[in-house]
Amino acid sequence: MRLALAEYGVAATLIEERPWQPSDDLIDLNPAGLSPVYVEDNGAAVAGAEALTEYLEETLGGDRPLIPGNALARAEVRRLVAWFDIKFYAEVTEPVLTEKVIRRFVAAPGNGRGSPDMQRMRAGLQMLKPHLDYLAYLAEQRSWLAGSELSLADLAAAAHISAIDYLGEINWADHPVAQTWYSRIKSRPSFRVLLADTIPGVAPAAHYAELDF
Amino acid sequence: MRLALAEYGVAATLIEERPWQPSDDLIDLNPAGLSPVYVEDNGAAVAGAEALTEYLEETLGGDRPLIPGNALARAEVRRLVAWFDIKFYAEVTEPVLTEKVIRRFVAAPGNGRGSPDMQRMRAGLQMLKPHLDYLAYLAEQRSWLAGSELSLADLAAAAHISAIDYLGEINWADHPVAQTWYSRIKSRPSFRVLLADTIPGVAPAAHYAELDF
Repeated sequence: MRLALAEYGVAATLIEERPWQPSDDLIDLNPAGLSPVYVEDNGAAVAGAEALTEYLEETLGGDRPLIPGNALARAEVRRLVAWFDIKFYAEVTEPVLTEKVIRRFVAAPGNGRGSPDMQRMRAGLQMLKPHLDYLAYLAEQRSWLAGSELSLADLAAAAHISAIDYLGEINWADHPVAQTWYSRIKSRPSFRVLLADTIPGVAPAAHYAELDF
Repeated sequence: MRLALAEYGVAATLIEERPWQPSDDLIDLNPAGLSPVYVEDNGAAVAGAEALTEYLEETLGGDRPLIPGNALARAEVRRLVAWFDIKFYAEVTEPVLTEKVIRRFVAAPGNGRGSPDMQRMRAGLQMLKPHLDYLAYLAEQRSWLAGSELSLADLAAAAHISAIDYLGEINWADHPVAQTWYSRIKSRPSFRVLLADTIPGVAPAAHYAELDF
């Protein structure tokens, strides 16, 4: 969502939330207790990535759509957004981030705090390879993942991949086509704020924010 | 998707797939190996519920939208579709259906076939109550779940609820407001084909297809 807002050219103030311990404010705005929630200056709130991607595109995407093209092209963007936000997330991002990062921040003992399950983390990293192969297959046929234009599909994929890359868990030498695609999207101005983010107590990989990696 | 197509007034030929054992044809149409996939007469395919709901609305929803209203109203529809398709599914539908139905159909031993995990099924049914309370909270304030018009939110909710109701696991006497809403949507012509469906070897609850229950 932050990448999309930056591509649309809209500035937003960020409020920190911990997904594993949602604040009362967050629950008031989204009964599901999840981020993202986007609050307009007039107080209107839009909750959840599924609703928010479409809302931002409808309200901000006029000149610079991130779900571009005809109905079929737009369906391809959405198919790939779901691929990364649901499938890649469940198979790679969630197990790797949970075991390597989130466990150390979860406050309540018994509520998931504890030693990382290294087997679960490794299983997530194993799944990274077929996903990067599929990404390369798309990137070889198309200018961007969903077609000839940059779209939300590229932003979704790059957001997930940047989280894994932060942890130094991608061996880019094994994935040259995916690397070329990632290098292009990483060079966009919209990516700068993301690359400047750090997790307290977890240093990013040495190459993480470098555009030539 | 079947309810949406019926509401749009479009007939589709159904092809049976087993989600736990996707056919090669399904994988060709959707590399994620999941239903739904919608194939147009010209062969164009749209894969995945996330892409398909928007595609059908863009191509068929002109006169009779299922994501009606302005950008904020449309966001509310999508928030609730995600609520039922993601949250309700993960907390209720998936554990209940997996343990009570799918386990007996899974062919490969070791691949999930086996005795149902009754504790997991009961945990799913426990979560049904707060979900039906939330549904009632919405239905008390609005004509339909997302606002003044029938929307995809009602269809998503009703589809999940019908699967649990088929198994006789909803005590409607405890949920009169949800029951009134469900009775209204169940009476729509679009619901008839769904109510006529049966699972081989699993008889529906006595009241399942009755409009007055």
